[in-house]
Amino acid sequence: MRLTPAQTDAFERDGYLFFPSLFRPDEIRLLSDEVPALYAQDRPENVRERTGGVVRTNFAAHLYSAPFARLARHPRMVEPVKQLFGEDVYMHQFKINGKQAFDGDVWQWHQDYGTWRNDDQMPEARAMNVAIFLDEVNEFNGPLMFIPGSHKLGVLDAQHDTTTTSYPLWTINHDSIAKLVARGGIVAPKGPPGSMILFHGCLVHASTSNLSPWNRVSVYLSLCAVSNHIRRFKRPGYIAHRDFAPIRCLPDDCLVKTYDVTLPWKDGTPAEELTGALKAA
Amino acid sequence: MRLTPAQTDAFERDGYLFFPSLFRPDEIRLLSDEVPALYAQDRPENVRERTGGVVRTNFAAHLYSAPFARLARHPRMVEPVKQLFGEDVYMHQFKINGKQAFDGDVWQWHQDYGTWRNDDQMPEARAMNVAIFLDEVNEFNGPLMFIPGSHKLGVLDAQHDTTTTSYPLWTINHDSIAKLVARGGIVAPKGPPGSMILFHGCLVHASTSNLSPWNRVSVYLSLCAVSNHIRRFKRPGYIAHRDFAPIRCLPDDCLVKTYDVTLPWKDGTPAEELTGALKAA
Repeated sequence: MRLTPAQTDAFERDGYLFFPSLFRPDEIRLLSDEVPALYAQDRPENVRERTGGVVRTNFAAHLYSAPFARLARHPRMVEPVKQLFGEDVYMHQFKINGKQAFDGDVWQWHQDYGTWRNDDQMPEARAMNVAIFLDEVNEFNGPLMFIPGSHKLGVLDAQHDTTTTSYPLWTINHDSIAKLVARGGIVAPKGPPGSMILFHGCLVHASTSNLSPWNRVSVYLSLCAVSNHIRRFKRPGYIAHRDFAPIRCLPDDCLVKTYDVTLPWKDGTPAEELTGALKAA
Repeated sequence: MRLTPAQTDAFERDGYLFFPSLFRPDEIRLLSDEVPALYAQDRPENVRERTGGVVRTNFAAHLYSAPFARLARHPRMVEPVKQLFGEDVYMHQFKINGKQAFDGDVWQWHQDYGTWRNDDQMPEARAMNVAIFLDEVNEFNGPLMFIPGSHKLGVLDAQHDTTTTSYPLWTINHDSIAKLVARGGIVAPKGPPGSMILFHGCLVHASTSNLSPWNRVSVYLSLCAVSNHIRRFKRPGYIAHRDFAPIRCLPDDCLVKTYDVTLPWKDGTPAEELTGALKAA
């Protein structure tokens, strides 16, 4: 899978690319079927909503779940990112975000690279966000909203918001958002399960609450250029990974055929990955 | 303005009717221009968001603001409601709802008639909700979401929710919503300023937060059939009106030409309208 020049131009201009139905229903089903068992686990990688026990985010499933370990090495996802960066990539973050029916909460406007720089000392915005829909995303279940072109301004001023969402986030003030939207508008890619979005680490995005009866579970990955690896291990290793080995892709049929993958955290999270350390190891 | 048989059929079936651009931009501007001064007033009719001083709802402006007093008597709004009920109507509730940019909060799934029955002892669901857009409503600024056909089941079980929204509301449980949506889906009418929605008092509706930089101010009216007036004055009079006199329409140009209207609360809200009384006067 090679991106066309029109696609790479669109990425430069808009800061994102949308691939509706990139993965087939039978491929996605193998992932979706695994999610309830992951969410049911009592492990620190499951972060729950402010109210109730609903899982909002599961971290690092590629280190203890075979289907997700194979997804983490899928060429349809990894190759376009390598092409855009022109070098190998490693897995900086791996999340399954359950913006669940009725309970899914708001994410305020933010840039992911703000967090990567402030918390992880990632040198440049050379890490790509990847969203893969496990459920249909429609106008009612809290789709990701992007401000096209907002990645071009680099890192915007942000405040550390620890109250209005379940997860601490560097959020951007209202005046800046109003100006960016006046120029670029807002888009919210919608599509069936198996659709994929690639978006720049500086692209400003948000999502509203999900009041609908439709779950909106997505896999969010951040693939970082290997040379751009993080310099600080302030956040736990299951949130910001410390293994900078380049991802080696499996064949294109790796979701439906069984290929051997290592599952190093299958029996639990290593103690040293549970806490932060101000210096890299 | 007479509704066609197709329109009255659609209302019976779906529980709502949408009239894009029913009012002209110059008519709407006269209303919008009045809103900041109303919101700036320190009076009990201004209810503010959970956080900050942003006004979420202004009540009863038709009793102290001339442009809104004329809107309350507008034939394009009143006549279709009289036609559907087959009798005169009075103003049960008059709100300007500011689902403001960035701060506009969630309204959970509910039916308005649940509140009217439980709190106000309104005998039947013969009061019509009317929404008139003062701002454009789009997919990003928290449009009203309806479940078509959900009005046919009458009053659904509901819990009194006093925590998740700024305003106490009888909200419907998740299982019921899931079943209703499986049958009727969800719609969210969107359109320019001046658009109007009529919707049944039992139509289940909700709206998400407004994270966009676009205000979404709307006028929400509830017009009750005169014979169906409320029997209890539990809520303050500025929320659930106690004057059951039939609305007498002004001419169609009443927003742009000056017609005399009485403004009985111009110098303040009468003391007896500020509190509830368990018995009607």
